[in-house]
Amino acid sequence: MDASSNERAATMMYERYIASLNARAWNGLGEFVADDVVHNGRQLGVDGYRAMLEENCREIPDLYFHIDFVVANESQVASRIRFDCTPINEFLGVPVHGRRVVFNEHAFYTLREGKIAEVFSVIDKAAIEAQARR
Amino acid sequence: MDASSNERAATMMYERYIASLNARAWNGLGEFVADDVVHNGRQLGVDGYRAMLEENCREIPDLYFHIDFVVANESQVASRIRFDCTPINEFLGVPVHGRRVVFNEHAFYTLREGKIAEVFSVIDKAAIEAQARR
Repeated sequence: MDASSNERAATMMYERYIASLNARAWNGLGEFVADDVVHNGRQLGVDGYRAMLEENCREIPDLYFHIDFVVANESQVASRIRFDCTPINEFLGVPVHGRRVVFNEHAFYTLREGKIAEVFSVIDKAAIEAQARR
Repeated sequence: MDASSNERAATMMYERYIASLNARAWNGLGEFVADDVVHNGRQLGVDGYRAMLEENCREIPDLYFHIDFVVANESQVASRIRFDCTPINEFLGVPVHGRRVVFNEHAFYTLREGKIAEVFSVIDKAAIEAQARR
């Protein structure tokens, strides 16, 4: 494939992955995520990764991943994800407690054989703090 | 140009931009940044953008931008930038006060006519807080 087909294939995989998170389709996670996936330096594996996502969804029942901006090539995806949601209790140590917060996550993914093998994610905690203070 | 040449051109422009920041080559900033550049929703323009960077460098004299991860296409660049530095006073409201902190910025850039026209940046504030508490 040429570079633009590789980019399209990676972007399409990523969009299907995000749709699966929004559908809470946890049993299909292994289609998108490598068995030994690493997240922010922690080797969670696909089971630990699923547990993290399920925990996020318990803490934020209306969690919905909206892709604002995505850049990809054959082996890398970068995505700016927007959330507009209401965490039940604390979130990232911020006392949100049922307030609506709008914030972004900026995530970088390394792909291996078409699956997510490593993730580096930063969430805009300062934006959440500013909204929790209002 | 084909997709991979476009990707290379954008990546090379971006690497030269980062080198210019590390060299504090402010007079050349307009080569990389559009006159009406927008940063995290604020229309700073190239002069305001330069003022922001100069302020960052006063607060953190040893500020050095190290690109860990970059993904690009013709009109978009996404970059994970690593810092290993010693902010003099507070940084992002965190009382760092001359401690060494290592953290990442995740930045997404929209390019127009080969220059940076819009930036969305998130800094890993939680990592800085964890290091300032030690």
